Amino acid sequence: MAKSDTIPNAVIGRLSLYLRQLEALLAASRGTVSSKELGAMLGQSDAQVRKDLAYFGQFGQAGVGYGVEDLVQSIRRILGTDRTWNVLLVGAGNLGRALVSYRGFLRKGFSLNAVVDADPNKVGELIDSARGIRVQAMEEMGAAVREHHITLAILAVPVSATQEVADQVVAAGIKGVLNFAPTALQLPDSVPLTAVDLSVSLEQLSFQLSSDA
Amino acid sequence: MAKSDTIPNAVIGRLSLYLRQLEALLAASRGTVSSKELGAMLGQSDAQVRKDLAYFGQFGQAGVGYGVEDLVQSIRRILGTDRTWNVLLVGAGNLGRALVSYRGFLRKGFSLNAVVDADPNKVGELIDSARGIRVQAMEEMGAAVREHHITLAILAVPVSATQEVADQVVAAGIKGVLNFAPTALQLPDSVPLTAVDLSVSLEQLSFQLSSDA
Repeated sequence: MAKSDTIPNAVIGRLSLYLRQLEALLAASRGTVSSKELGAMLGQSDAQVRKDLAYFGQFGQAGVGYGVEDLVQSIRRILGTDRTWNVLLVGAGNLGRALVSYRGFLRKGFSLNAVVDADPNKVGELIDSARGIRVQAMEEMGAAVREHHITLAILAVPVSATQEVADQVVAAGIKGVLNFAPTALQLPDSVPLTAVDLSVSLEQLSFQLSSDA
Repeated sequence: MAKSDTIPNAVIGRLSLYLRQLEALLAASRGTVSSKELGAMLGQSDAQVRKDLAYFGQFGQAGVGYGVEDLVQSIRRILGTDRTWNVLLVGAGNLGRALVSYRGFLRKGFSLNAVVDADPNKVGELIDSARGIRVQAMEEMGAAVREHHITLAILAVPVSATQEVADQVVAAGIKGVLNFAPTALQLPDSVPLTAVDLSVSLEQLSFQLSSDA
């Protein structure tokens, strides 16, 4: 497989969107789909679809299109979600709670296994009754990571605490970090970091409204 | 200005990132920055920076770089955040509350003016004490939109309610919608829609972990 540093992030983002659309087609029992159809569903060209997929190999057949189920499996394999990543959530505030209950967040491929918070008043609370997960203290992080073989951490903590918490999750053996706090983090090069900046979405919207006016 | 349908979304997303970085440089009293420096801060090439900005005109001077303050103002004008967009939040659950308190979310250019929720138990609650905003009933949406000249709506409601709520905000006169529910919406072509799919970020992370391994 191509190494991640040669693939633009935007391509990976579009693979996720293709996967959503293909999963919907699979649920509707569609057998094949063309790059043109798939592109049209997402408002982009068939050439872009083919170019994005070409980073990862040869998919589909000329004149027939892609086998929906095959392509779902291939993209999951590319994205690494054909296996299950165990996830630690740090922060049981409003954002953490929203993530726990957000149906679309922990899809196939991700499993929430532990939640920790620095607030003693939250420790012990049953935050995810479906999975039977109680909030644990920060000091229990290392043990939870080892016990549940957790590789990913989601940081939903205040900006002022983010770097300290990032250092703690790395020390606890976490291999990758998803940061929701609107601040830059310093992590070892060996630990991939993805940041979610929600204001980017609002700016996309204001751009569309401004330039269409 | 270039029309929005000719500019890839990814370019707009990167403009937001450039703006963050430039705002940080401005706060640190930096006068100029080169495309190489700006690119390096975001892990991308100087050619990409120049190409992205070239969609919108001519910026900076060869050998000198970009004036930080000028470029901040230019990007805000491009993104439409040199004016203030008034925002309605629909949904005062965990996600809605997280958005209200999320420091990075409503930056310069966006002002939260009203919050509505379908749950009568939430109506009247002071959800944003800093701005003195109380949760209002869904029936008050139209009046709130008119009173505060609101143009953008953020939907933080359950999937099952999202389409109905989207129809309601459009009927109330909203011009653009940011949807957090993991579901596709049908809106009139005249109403831009941006969707936030949080699982995309997790998939980026698992891709990096998978392909670096």
